[in-house]
Order: sequence, then C-alpha cells, then structure tokens
Amino acid sequence: MIVSHDQDAAVDAAVEILDAEDPWRDLPPTARMVVESALLSFADRGFHATTLKHIASGSGLSTAALYVHFSSKDELLYDISRRGHESALTIVEKAAALEPAEHAFRTLVYVFARWHAERRTVARVVQYQLNALTGVQAEEIANIRRRTERVVRRVVAAVSTTSDDDIDLRGLSAAVISLGIDVARWYQPDGRYTPDEVGRLQCRLAARLVQLESHPTAPR
Amino acid sequence: MIVSHDQDAAVDAAVEILDAEDPWRDLPPTARMVVESALLSFADRGFHATTLKHIASGSGLSTAALYVHFSSKDELLYDISRRGHESALTIVEKAAALEPAEHAFRTLVYVFARWHAERRTVARVVQYQLNALTGVQAEEIANIRRRTERVVRRVVAAVSTTSDDDIDLRGLSAAVISLGIDVARWYQPDGRYTPDEVGRLQCRLAARLVQLESHPTAPR
Repeated sequence: MIVSHDQDAAVDAAVEILDAEDPWRDLPPTARMVVESALLSFADRGFHATTLKHIASGSGLSTAALYVHFSSKDELLYDISRRGHESALTIVEKAAALEPAEHAFRTLVYVFARWHAERRTVARVVQYQLNALTGVQAEEIANIRRRTERVVRRVVAAVSTTSDDDIDLRGLSAAVISLGIDVARWYQPDGRYTPDEVGRLQCRLAARLVQLESHPTAPR
Repeated sequence: MIVSHDQDAAVDAAVEILDAEDPWRDLPPTARMVVESALLSFADRGFHATTLKHIASGSGLSTAALYVHFSSKDELLYDISRRGHESALTIVEKAAALEPAEHAFRTLVYVFARWHAERRTVARVVQYQLNALTGVQAEEIANIRRRTERVVRRVVAAVSTTSDDDIDLRGLSAAVISLGIDVARWYQPDGRYTPDEVGRLQCRLAARLVQLESHPTAPR
C-alpha cells in the first residue's frame, strides 16, 4: 500500500516540476499563438490536411506575419514534436533525480500521467502525427523517446522487487509508460477524474505493477 | 504467480477466438482490397489528406470501380471503424464468457493485447482518425467502446481482490484496457516481442494490476 504521506510527498515534488516546465517558454507571444493554432488544427484536421492559411487565421495573423516565426508547417510540426518530447523528458529526468528511489518512482509516475492529462492536445498531436516526420527530424525525435524510455527503465529497475516471475525490465517499464501515455487518449477534462486524481490513481497502479510495498494488510 | 498451465490454457482459448475472428469476413475480395488500401493511406497520410484516388490506385481499381463498394471515404472510415471496434468487442465478449473467472480474465487480456499487436494498422487508424467521425456515426462507435469497457469492467470485477487500497474498479479496468490499446502504438513486428509474447507479458502485468494470485513464493 502507498502510505498517503508518501503519495503527498510525490505530488508536491511533481507539482513543483510541472510548474517550472513550459515547452514554449522562449517563444514570443505571437509565436505562441501560432503554435496554439497549429496544435488545434493538427489535432482536429490532422497534419496533412492543415494548411498555413488555417494556422494563420486560427492565430489571427496574416500568412506573411506567420512566416516571420515559421517557414513551413513541417517546421512547425517538428518544432512542436521536439518541444513536446523534450518537455516529457525533462519532467521525467527531474523526477528520476529525486531520492530515495521509491520517491523518485512515485513522482515520475505522477508527473508523467498528469502531464499527459494536462497536455493531452500536444501529446495527441505528437503521437498521432509522428509518422509525418521523416529523415533527420524523425531520428532526432526517436532519440529523445529512447532517452525517456531509458530514464523510466532505470527508475523502475531501482524499485522493482525481484521475483520468480518472468517479466523482463523492458516489458515492465513499457507498461509503466503505456499507462501514462494512454491518458492522453482517454482523458476528458469534464470526465470522472481531475489531472491530480489521474496522477494519484496511476501511482497506485504502477506500484502494483512493480510490486512496490506489496503488503496488503499493512496499516494505511 | 501465473502457473504456466493457466497461461497456456488462456493462450489456447485466445488463439481459437482470434482464428474465428475476421472483421471483413462478409466482404467480397475486391472490397477487401479497397479496405486494405484505405487503411494504409489513412494510417500513412491521415484521413483528411487521403483522396478516393489514393485509395483507388492503392487497390488497383479505377475510381469508378471503387464506387461500386463505397460511396465516399467517409463511409469507408466509418465502415473500418465500426468493424474494427466490433471485432475488438467480439473477442473480448468471447473471452469474458469463459469459466472460471480467472481463465476468462487471462484470456481476455491475452486476446486484447495480441489483437492490438496483429491488427495495429486497423487499431491506429480507428484510434487516431476517430475525431474525423461525427454525429450518429461517432455516437455509434462511442457506444461500441462503452460496451467493450463494460465487459472488461465485469471481468476485472470478478477477479479483483478486495483490498484496502482505494483504486476504484473503473480506474483498474481503464488501466487493463490502456495496456492493451497502447500495444498498437509501440508494437513493431521486427522488434523484441512476437504478438504471442506480448500477450503473455500482458497477462502477467494485468495479473499484478488486479492482484490476481499474489503469492510470490508459490511454486511455479
């Protein structure tokens, strides 16, 4: 069982990490509006059916004004994907650096789940339009993903109780990642859970997956 | 721990269910080729950027010949989505009808995961292009999804050990479903696992989630 103090400590650490994280922090306000508009259009119409005109009109700019910030919608998708993936990597790395290992694990699971609930539009675009990227750009994104996976694997390894079961570490980490990523698919802001509740739920679920503190009769 | 006999029995039952399942069984060969071609184009370009010309040329037909089977690409997407969702519902229902409850649970998890590995193109299109459907069609698909979720919830409820933890049944079932659905995202045919191995891995992971047979020291 997760003692509620442990959970609360993880939530506090995670909220601090999330508050400090903004994938678009260095962009001027106009460029942010362009990104907003592109995100909504990519999420709604898909990347290929989105034109620069859609993006410009959604951000209240002329197409000419849009070119000041981005030269093409391909560049926009790449920029959004890179920032989205780097943002996820950053929060995961910050959580992984905490101590002790169990605190790092809980914070990581919470922060990853809540990020996918709160940034579900970014997460969906980044996920669903990924195959629109090619070449060096696709390779760069794939590298960031692999780095994120490695960080999760390291944290899972540190808390996972060895057992006679034959779940390999890679399969276990993939499952922890799946729970978080799939939040972006099913989460609805007007639904049953708040982003905080999703994070807490996933902490408990992931603790079961790695068999953290499996003492069903322990006092709470 | 999952005794390997239990796992093998679930695999046998699941393979029987999968062998009997073909979402396109009633379609004549030409219509199947159209569906194949549409699936690849939707997965690659996205729904909005796909034209009937793409689909026709991909299936080696003239656009006129294509109209014999489908009147529009909207109808095609709807048809693919409906059949894809109904197929997932069917395999899940068949697994849920098995006895005892633990056998039903293992078979369900295995069959759902393996289906998402083997039919990942269908699953991705159905998932990623879902918001291209509107009105009555979107509502019908949402209904099939809710039915699938209810079946999974019933099976999870039957095996889930009551505990003092506060994971609600809905959250637990959502996690079991997430593990399966996310397979379509990460599964690669040339990767580490075969579809059978993914199914077996997920059986073990899901057993941990619902705390099925949590006797770490039991003989295997």
